[in-house]
Parts: sequence; structure tokens; C-alpha cells
Amino acid sequence: MFQAAVQTFSVSAAAASVYRGVFLVGFRRYCKKTSTKLRVSEALTGAEVGADVKVQGWVRSVRSQKNNIFFHVNDGSSLKSLQVVAGAEMNDPLLTFGSAVEVTGILKKSPHQKQPVELEAEQIRVVGGCNPVDFPFKIKERHSLEYIRQLPHLRCRTNAFSSLLRIRSEATAAIHSYFKDHGFVQIHTPIITSNDCEGAGELFKVEPSGPDFGDDEEFFSVPAFLTVSGQLHLEVMSGAFSRVYTFGPTFRAENSQSRRHLAEFFMVEAEISFTESLKDLTKVMEDMFRSATERVLARCVEDVDLFHRHVTPGHRDTVEAMLNKSFPVITYTEAIDILNRSSEKFTFPTDWGCDLMTEHEKHLVKHCGNVPVFVTDYPYDLKPFYARDNQDQPRHTTAAVDLLVPGIGELCGGSLREERLDLLMARLKQYLDLRRFGAVPHGGFGLGFERYLQCILGVDNIKDVIPFPRFSHSCLL
Amino acid sequence: MFQAAVQTFSVSAAAASVYRGVFLVGFRRYCKKTSTKLRVSEALTGAEVGADVKVQGWVRSVRSQKNNIFFHVNDGSSLKSLQVVAGAEMNDPLLTFGSAVEVTGILKKSPHQKQPVELEAEQIRVVGGCNPVDFPFKIKERHSLEYIRQLPHLRCRTNAFSSLLRIRSEATAAIHSYFKDHGFVQIHTPIITSNDCEGAGELFKVEPSGPDFGDDEEFFSVPAFLTVSGQLHLEVMSGAFSRVYTFGPTFRAENSQSRRHLAEFFMVEAEISFTESLKDLTKVMEDMFRSATERVLARCVEDVDLFHRHVTPGHRDTVEAMLNKSFPVITYTEAIDILNRSSEKFTFPTDWGCDLMTEHEKHLVKHCGNVPVFVTDYPYDLKPFYARDNQDQPRHTTAAVDLLVPGIGELCGGSLREERLDLLMARLKQYLDLRRFGAVPHGGFGLGFERYLQCILGVDNIKDVIPFPRFSHSCLL
Repeated sequence: MFQAAVQTFSVSAAAASVYRGVFLVGFRRYCKKTSTKLRVSEALTGAEVGADVKVQGWVRSVRSQKNNIFFHVNDGSSLKSLQVVAGAEMNDPLLTFGSAVEVTGILKKSPHQKQPVELEAEQIRVVGGCNPVDFPFKIKERHSLEYIRQLPHLRCRTNAFSSLLRIRSEATAAIHSYFKDHGFVQIHTPIITSNDCEGAGELFKVEPSGPDFGDDEEFFSVPAFLTVSGQLHLEVMSGAFSRVYTFGPTFRAENSQSRRHLAEFFMVEAEISFTESLKDLTKVMEDMFRSATERVLARCVEDVDLFHRHVTPGHRDTVEAMLNKSFPVITYTEAIDILNRSSEKFTFPTDWGCDLMTEHEKHLVKHCGNVPVFVTDYPYDLKPFYARDNQDQPRHTTAAVDLLVPGIGELCGGSLREERLDLLMARLKQYLDLRRFGAVPHGGFGLGFERYLQCILGVDNIKDVIPFPRFSHSCLL
Repeated sequence: MFQAAVQTFSVSAAAASVYRGVFLVGFRRYCKKTSTKLRVSEALTGAEVGADVKVQGWVRSVRSQKNNIFFHVNDGSSLKSLQVVAGAEMNDPLLTFGSAVEVTGILKKSPHQKQPVELEAEQIRVVGGCNPVDFPFKIKERHSLEYIRQLPHLRCRTNAFSSLLRIRSEATAAIHSYFKDHGFVQIHTPIITSNDCEGAGELFKVEPSGPDFGDDEEFFSVPAFLTVSGQLHLEVMSGAFSRVYTFGPTFRAENSQSRRHLAEFFMVEAEISFTESLKDLTKVMEDMFRSATERVLARCVEDVDLFHRHVTPGHRDTVEAMLNKSFPVITYTEAIDILNRSSEKFTFPTDWGCDLMTEHEKHLVKHCGNVPVFVTDYPYDLKPFYARDNQDQPRHTTAAVDLLVPGIGELCGGSLREERLDLLMARLKQYLDLRRFGAVPHGGFGLGFERYLQCILGVDNIKDVIPFPRFSHSCLL
């Protein structure tokens, strides 16, 4: 995953004491110059060839020859690094893999095909040293995702994880753009809530840590929890805005360290009023998936390529297949038929009324050509109380939909919401009030953002697509 | 705040039993038509005059005349509502203030100057009734912000709060755009953390609510809290990306119900590597403020106007003054001189070394012409350990900066971060590791997003600029 270098320098621990002096003197003297400050990504476009520029970043490789030294500088603006060429007399024992540098010089066309430009150094300042003995990443070594996961404060220095973070940032922006362009109002739904959306028990409780409040007194006067979903709060808003969405962290106190679970993960949730059928939801889910993915593929070409080449070879084809076809829609009843007609032996039962398990979801996705597939109209008893009753017989179903995707399983889940007051009469008073005053047919869905990133990148472990993973027995930093 | 209506209908509670039937029959029959579905904001542009359209929303006023009924429909797409004109024979006892309707008809040029178009109804369906007796908002009445705050599940139905939410959504998008356009990578910093950035005691503790974990065992193996700041996590990232930011909720377990405090509020935080002076930070703070505010003023004209006319008359001038001048920069030492030369009597001391209190901040803002003002280089002992030591004498200061704004006080706080390892040696091991491996001079700041909204809108109570306020003894919904 790391840039390889032909040769590096050995820096003794004693050199560390020089660091501060070098920085102060070099940095201050340097400030007098007036070169154009460029980011590495800007320098690499070649637009500034011939200019006197200043580039700042971290050294990804160093190679020393008789008359020259060559090193690569990366500043996180792109996967690619900028090659710097300097006279051997400019060498510095502190110029090591991992160190931070400021380089001024002239940007030149590179004689090598691999890179459009290189920086001919006139001045090199080691701004922050990095002792290669202590630095947990080694030059020329390819570190496993498991290893770098143990170093939450440094893993952004690796190619794979910095690519992931650029992609995550772009995907976030793409999803916001999709909703904004389609007239959705973004709602900051709360993290702390006195409500438990799913009725599941796996909640985190929130209490002040200080001594201000006694054991008998609640800070909020009621028990308070970390949200498991912004749905209720979006439903509130869908009573005034016909299109709303939220994008933020949600929480499950699940005692699991599996590669599929996190205690804190990001969810995109949308709620649409005046829905007429599940098509109003599946259209938004599919359009959002397509629009975000196309934008990420177009704007993060090299970063995505790193995953599609090195992490999951062949995944590019899977992603392109997803984008080239509209997503098939099957009912739960059809799904059960497909499973029962298949020759595959399943561990879990496939009788009508049983929940679809991962093995079933995988089979259905494969059956449909390894593209995302919508499964609609689940048995009434499988879905939460707020899903809209289809009032059908003898197989009683509800207007709920899941989007299953290759390699992941459920990516989105949604439903038309039950807007009929009499069918909800036994529920929460406030939830009922939403139906009492100008209730409209509406529906919504949630998308697991980490699962989305896993889906488009082919990353196996959910902990590798979130900056700071939280799960049972792990809250590093 | 609400649309007034000349006359309304009295609906008996008995009418409620009709709701379901009306909805089902009307809605299904309706689906056969193929009118163009328009949002109210789209209809009001006038581009579709002459077209057969369908509009869906909530009734904001009803007025009945001998031959015609007139009512306004709002769907949250804009502050303005669309006037519908219908023959008296289309009247329906369920068509009341607050009810949800679907109207099809022909969009016509309006004979009245107040509105560009009106909808001549051919069919009206009351999709969801609203009994005016139970509905806590009354037609023709202007409800106070205090009153609507008690109705978290319905306050989005008011003009003021729906305007606020549209502005909040636009301001959020504007801030994201500013950072994206300037090469910042967005980082989803975690909500749950084992770290306490400020060293303050006002933390919320997070624990699973279920019985899976005993009292002796921590879910995360370490005590876990809700974040008070994403700074540490951004500093981690600023060691690989030279520009990062985060935008999300942060938490304080402060036992306060004042108009200035929330237990959960949103913060924008940025971290910039290779900084040379505080100017690198103040430039970003000022540019972001200016760019976001200009965009909000340009894109939410009517919504902002509602606040600037009705909530805080005259605030528009304050905002324009802020945008027309570059923000002055004074040092803390100059600030103390200004306070000591003033004729104003302060409650709190103004000796060098004392913290600036709200009364001081207000005076400084007024002194500088009622525009945002940066105060820099605070006494060393007033700022946290991570702020960069200016190493000056005899008045020992630190490279920290606050942005004070009219009416609010501190809007942003930031500092250059201490990157010199020896000066941090007594601190956290991981924080030290960030300095050990290619440390660079860097700095960052945080902006309180609710305070920002209060600042540009002139809203006095912080609870009125957040969708679901959380504070001590209050966690509604």
C-alpha cells in the first residue's frame, strides 16, 4: 500500500534533539520567500510548469544517488505524490520516510512518463522529523488492514486509508447534492433522544458523568438514549416539508466484534410525503445510489482504482454492472418462490413468513444477475408497527422494501408509513398526534453509509471504511 | 407568524370518523389522473401557467364566499403558499386550517398583484383531516416562540420555524460547499470517544442500557463519553491531509436552561496544516462566514426576511454591516486597553490576565463598529494546553484567537497548535505520537453553528434555531 523507495537513511534516536532547532530556524527564514504555495494535486496538473512554487507535505519515499536525491511528497490532496529532485548537497539526515517537509523550487516537466511534472528543489526544510525506528509504518512494506486498524491516530498516513477518506468525503458530498438538487430539506435530527424507534433493546443510555446530578435524578428528567434512527424526527418534519432527509451517526449497543457491526455508524434517512406507492421510495433509493456512485467514480478515479485493483480485484466490473442496469424489483413472495425453487441448500428455513437471512439475500442477488435488487411487501409480522398495512389476504403483507446489494446484503430499508389514525390508535400519543393534524401518506427509508462504501469499494470489514470505528471493547481515541 | 384567514369552518369531532373513508376513496380515484405534479415553489415561479397540475400540501387559510372558496396551500418548499380558487360546490367540511390536501386544476395568472399565479381547482381531495378544535395552532393567531417550542412535533408547521429549517439546511450546505471548494476533506469525527478534549468535567457518559453488560464491565473496555469537540480527531487527520473539517453534534452536560445553552449543539471545526501565523486561521474563519452568509441571504430571501422584519427588526442592517467591512483584528492586550480606557463600568475585572466576559465582548464589538472582531494572543494561562506558546515576555501569551460577533459574543475559537514535542512532553502518549512522526505547524478552530444562525438571523434563544433542542430537564421526542 505504501510507496516503495530504493534506499532510505538511518537516523539515530539522538537526531531527535535536532528537530526543534531545524524547524524554527528553517521555518522562519523561509517565510520571507514569496513562491506560489501549491497543493500536490495542483502541482501535478502541470498548469504551473516553470513557476517558482512551494509545496508542503510528508515524505513517502527517499532515494539517494551520487549527485542527486529524489523523494516523493504527499499532502493528502491526492493519492499521487510529487517527485522532488535535489542536489546531493541538499541532503539532510532528517529527510526520512514519514517526515514533514517544505520544498521550494521550480516546477518542471518530468523526463519520465510516469509523472507529468517534478519539482527541482532550491530549498528543502524538514519541518517535522520522523524517526524511522519508532514510526510504526516501514518503507517498502505493505501493511495489512488489520495492522493499520490498530493505529487509529496514524492510519490516515497510508495510501489505502487516505484514499478511503477522500472517497468517503466525496460520497458524503454527493449524497447531500443529490438530496439538495431534488428539493429535500436537510434536518439535523438529534443524537440524544427519549424515544426508541425500533423498539429494540440495544440502546446506549446517556447520563452526565459529573456529580451534579444524583442517582435519583435524570439530567433530562426522562431516560435518554443515543438515537438508533432519525425516522420519528423526520416523520415530524414530513408533516410540513414534503421531502426531508438526515445524514448522521446512529448507534447500537450490540455486543459484537464482527466485521459487519459497529456501535456507531452513519445513516442516510429520507422521508417523502404524499407517496402513492413503494415506487416513490425505490425511485429515490435507486437514483441516489446511482447519482452518488457515478460522481464518486468520476471524481475519485485514482482512489477508487486503488481499491478496485489492490483490495478487491474485479470489483470494478461488479460496480459497473450495478450502474448499467435498472434495479429489479421482486416481492417477498416471489423471493420465497425463487429460494424454494433453487437447488441450493439453505441453513435457515425459507417458508413464507420467515425472515430473509444473509444466505437468502446473497442467493437472491445472484439470481437477479449480481445487481442490487429491491424486495417489497414483506409479511406484516416481520416489519415494525409503522409500516403501512397492505390489508391483503390470506397472506397479510406490509408496504416495506429492502434494497439488497452484492456482497453486503441489506443496504437500504424503507416503507410506506401507516398514516391511518385508527390503525395506529394503540400507539404513542405524539406519534398519533402526527396523524391527527393533516396526516398524509408518506414513506421513507434508511441507507447504511458504511455499507454503501463497502458496496462500491469491495471492502470486507466495516471498520475499514469509517475514520474511528467504535464497537464492543474498542473505543480507540 | 401564521397566514390569516377571513373565515374558517367549524368541524365537529364526529367528522373525524369520515377522514379515513375520504382519504381512501379520494386518493385511489385520484391516481388515475396524469396532471403534472408541482411543488408550491415551482408553481409560484409562473413557468407552468396554463398547465394541468397537481399540488399537494397543508392548508394555511380558508375563506368562503358565496360562489367561491379560496384557500392557501403550503408544502414547505417555500415560505409562500399557493392560492387555490374553487367553486363553492367543491367545499368540504374537512377542508380546514391544517388539513392536508391534493388539488388538481389549471394554473392561471392571478388577477391580484400579491401573487403571480393561482390554481383554479378542478378536484380537491382532503388527504388528511385536521380537527381545528384539537389542533394546537389557531388560524389568525400569532403564536409566540415560547409556545411553539412546547410542540416539538408540530412546530415545523409554523411559518417562522419552517423558514428557520430551510435556512438551517441552506447554511449547512453553504458551509460544506465553502470547505469543499477550498480543498478540505470532510471527516466524520466520532460521537462516542474515550477522550476528553477540553479537560472540562461536563461530559455525558455512554453505557449500554441493556442487561448484557454487568456493572463491572465497560462496553468499550474503557469509560466512553459523548464528544465535546472533534479537534483531537481532526488533528490526527491533519497529519495526512493538510486541510480537514468536520460538522456535527457535540455535547455538554451543563445543568443550564438558559437561552444560551444546549446539551447538544452543532459545531463546525477545521484544522489546517503548515500554518505560519494566526492569519491562516482568521482568513478561513472570515471567508467561511462571509461566503455562507452571502449564500444564505441570496438563496433564502423570503425566509431571512421573515426574521429580519418580524423577529428582530433592523437586524438586516447589522448583517449587511458585517459583510461590508473586513473583520478587525485586535490582540487581547489591545482589548484590555480598550476596556480600561472606556467610561463603561464593568461588573467583572479587566486586569491583564482576566478572561473576557460577555459584557467585555459586547463592549469590544461595539467599539469596533458593531462588526465581528478577532481577538488574538490570549494570556498563556487562559487557553488549553494544546494552544501554541508565543514564548513572549513579560506577558506570556499563546497563539489563540476568538471571533466575537454582535449580539452573541464568541462565535469561533481557534489556535495554532503546539507542534513542538518537548513542550508537550508531559501530555497524552497518543497526542505526543502525533508530534513524533512528521509533525507540522498547524492550527484550527471551531464555530458554533447555532450561534452562527442566531448571529445572522437575530434570534435570541438558541432553542429556536435547532430542530429538537436538548437541555437539562428537556428531551422532548
